[in-house]
Amino acid sequence: MSEPFRLPPDIEAVSTPLDGLELCEARLMNDARFIWVVLVPRRAGAVEIDDLDLAERILLLEESVETGRRVRRIGEALGRPVEKLNIAALGNVTRALHVHVIGRRSDDAAWPRPVWGVGEASSWDATSLSLVQHRWKG
Amino acid sequence: MSEPFRLPPDIEAVSTPLDGLELCEARLMNDARFIWVVLVPRRAGAVEIDDLDLAERILLLEESVETGRRVRRIGEALGRPVEKLNIAALGNVTRALHVHVIGRRSDDAAWPRPVWGVGEASSWDATSLSLVQHRWKG
Repeated sequence: MSEPFRLPPDIEAVSTPLDGLELCEARLMNDARFIWVVLVPRRAGAVEIDDLDLAERILLLEESVETGRRVRRIGEALGRPVEKLNIAALGNVTRALHVHVIGRRSDDAAWPRPVWGVGEASSWDATSLSLVQHRWKG
Repeated sequence: MSEPFRLPPDIEAVSTPLDGLELCEARLMNDARFIWVVLVPRRAGAVEIDDLDLAERILLLEESVETGRRVRRIGEALGRPVEKLNIAALGNVTRALHVHVIGRRSDDAAWPRPVWGVGEASSWDATSLSLVQHRWKG
């Protein structure tokens, strides 16, 4: 695969950058109803998890777990502690490999259903967004 | 965690056993609209992926990847080749840790939406079920 990696434009359009990880770009979805991060491995052409080699798959797994921990930390900081993580690689709409890590609560807008396609996104206010970006780092 | 592992009753009620893997029980969902396998790690009390230790997480990852390959093989055998895998750990309804591995096609009953909560399940006929169980093995 010689083409350069590029963030999928339809993910870029609906998300805000967070500090990247070793393998993955990390993006906060522009939907304040959920603490919802999308990880995109910097591997051009990857679609399925087994398009990555074993070492990359393990990195993707561990970055997903680390992202879950950060999502929990962000939930605490926002006063919305996470009750359950949802971690998923779907890709029916955006083909390039990406993993959703979503902090769920029983009072959120989609519970207990999955978040995809439910209602309308609501924007992050500047204060909360700044808090998310700060707590993402540590 | 001293309690013995038990398959979650609500997963057991809607699925059929496949040969188990090293870490996980494997269950075929009783819904012939999708080739949909649920993996349940035999670890009593586990809810989130990071309730497993690193070695177990890697096993869960690799058994998910292997299940994806088998789902593709089953799709070929049924004349319904898989176009995209969906792999997800949600757990909003059934709390015990489990991973969904679903073979998706652009002509399936939920495409491009996720499968959860869409329409009514349709039963596997005995011939197809037997083919799935056989092709699961190799």
